[in-house]
Amino acid sequence: MTTLRDIAEAAGVSVMTVSNVVNGRLGKVSPAMVARVQELVRDLGYVPNASARALSGRTSGIVALVYPDPDPSQPALANAHDATFVGEVQRQVSASGRFLMIHAARDVASTVADLRTWGVDGAIFLGTFGSEVDALRDRYDIPMVFVDNYSESESVTTVRIDDARGGVLAAQHLTAAGHTRVAFAGPETAVEGVVRRRLDGFLQGLRESGADVQPDLVLPCAMSFRAGHDLAGALLESSRRPTAVFATADVIAIGILKGLADRGLSAPDDLSVVGFDDLSEGEHRSPMLTTIRQDVPAKARASVDLLLAAAEDAAERAPRGGRVVLDVELVERETVGAPRAVGPTP
Amino acid sequence: MTTLRDIAEAAGVSVMTVSNVVNGRLGKVSPAMVARVQELVRDLGYVPNASARALSGRTSGIVALVYPDPDPSQPALANAHDATFVGEVQRQVSASGRFLMIHAARDVASTVADLRTWGVDGAIFLGTFGSEVDALRDRYDIPMVFVDNYSESESVTTVRIDDARGGVLAAQHLTAAGHTRVAFAGPETAVEGVVRRRLDGFLQGLRESGADVQPDLVLPCAMSFRAGHDLAGALLESSRRPTAVFATADVIAIGILKGLADRGLSAPDDLSVVGFDDLSEGEHRSPMLTTIRQDVPAKARASVDLLLAAAEDAAERAPRGGRVVLDVELVERETVGAPRAVGPTP
Repeated sequence: MTTLRDIAEAAGVSVMTVSNVVNGRLGKVSPAMVARVQELVRDLGYVPNASARALSGRTSGIVALVYPDPDPSQPALANAHDATFVGEVQRQVSASGRFLMIHAARDVASTVADLRTWGVDGAIFLGTFGSEVDALRDRYDIPMVFVDNYSESESVTTVRIDDARGGVLAAQHLTAAGHTRVAFAGPETAVEGVVRRRLDGFLQGLRESGADVQPDLVLPCAMSFRAGHDLAGALLESSRRPTAVFATADVIAIGILKGLADRGLSAPDDLSVVGFDDLSEGEHRSPMLTTIRQDVPAKARASVDLLLAAAEDAAERAPRGGRVVLDVELVERETVGAPRAVGPTP
Repeated sequence: MTTLRDIAEAAGVSVMTVSNVVNGRLGKVSPAMVARVQELVRDLGYVPNASARALSGRTSGIVALVYPDPDPSQPALANAHDATFVGEVQRQVSASGRFLMIHAARDVASTVADLRTWGVDGAIFLGTFGSEVDALRDRYDIPMVFVDNYSESESVTTVRIDDARGGVLAAQHLTAAGHTRVAFAGPETAVEGVVRRRLDGFLQGLRESGADVQPDLVLPCAMSFRAGHDLAGALLESSRRPTAVFATADVIAIGILKGLADRGLSAPDDLSVVGFDDLSEGEHRSPMLTTIRQDVPAKARASVDLLLAAAEDAAERAPRGGRVVLDVELVERETVGAPRAVGPTP
């Protein structure tokens, strides 16, 4: 590998002179020599050592992305939402001339240790450490962006979508189609977060449309195809069977649709279904899933933009309270129709 | 952040003594002082600086993963196969105490520059730089593992699945069901690679079963749902319509199934379909996709194992010609049946 010394010997100058040029301290070197050294850097293929740059206290050039990996029994990043987010963050970080390290989330302490080890320029956290973000921020003062996080702390920078609006849109769409007995499916949650906001918006939308809000139809369902599939049976066998369901994730909605199909039933004839995310899988099937669309690549781009703006401005080294909220929209496809009169299932 | 100086002051010794202990040069320090310094390292929360370690010529602790990102108009990592591979590599690299950098593949030169910048301990290449791996290897001598690569070079370490066997299994399954007029769908390729091997195995399996091999039924199809969807129309409208198709990827097969459904047709009644990969999406639909299963997490684990074995053994700094080939299996679901007599479609 080419070293500063190689270039110095080729140019007939001191290593210090070459170092000055490579590190942008051009005032001490004649313009002709700057040009000569830069030419040799190119021709000899010198690559500045990023480890050395990091050690000297300048930026490390590394951005970290921490993403959820909640279930070791399931493949990591199998969730298309998370994978798309990671892929787009990589593109944007790379376009900025930086490198991306990815970390599956464990706990706050080990995550901080990971970030410190490399002195990263900043870190993006995807949907993890919901209520622990202040603890995380306090333990390591670098630019951080928290995605899909509802921290009220003014010191926390967040990027998210308008989750509550998504819930309102789903409620409006279902009540406009004539549904009054509608269910919600999502993970049980006590904390302020994405699922809670979607549910709150949904309940608000139902109320505004004059539909009853029935607490027994807020149905706990893990964030998986299998859980949605199992829930379909429970929905159909309920003595007070709903005519429609809003699932907080497409993966749950697709599980419900498959559960219907396995019983010889289908949406929207037997149950209207609205998902959330607009994963491509929802469009690859018949009937195609009606859903609330979020723009995952745009969420990734906003996160990197916020982070790099902070990382590049020393005065903003710890950005305080930046907020980006992206809009959502209803995508009407094939799984919502008018309710059919149904009795208890045999 | 705690520095070596902080620890030196607390212990009442020189910075050099602390450095000796932290870096494992224990011979020069009394056992009592080693214990005292180690205790302070723990208590004060000193984190060894990885940048400094990298600069000193010891391992950087970083593993790089280079993955394909062929189409900027499509979301990156939207392919579940690639995303699952990345996720599992991260888990394994993290379990080894290292960090994972991810890079979307561009060209050999810029990829080598990226790897050099950080002095990575090794790199895994997922399905990229097919015929350029020797050039890549020659330009940077670190442990590298090439996944889904068919290089014949003895200096190249590869992990792949038995692609040809997958083709044979698909042919056997379709001919056993009675099909004699079968198509293959996959990207056109002149080079020795994954798609070529699957096709070769498929043709071999057809021949061994006594079925005719019809060159006009080797159908070019890009690696996407949309391309598969479009192909369904061409398959059905062909004057010599096949009764079955083997697609080199589930994403294509699912596109074909949706193309059938959009015409009021379905598998296997109107066309038998076999995919390749066993993505979860194939099981989330009706009918569920019959496919050739590969174990993507196992492929990721084998890649990391090979890489770390080489990275940890200086004598094996450039592993030569390691080969891991993982088995595949047929997963029978719902998209293959006996051929129906069909005339030209109206």
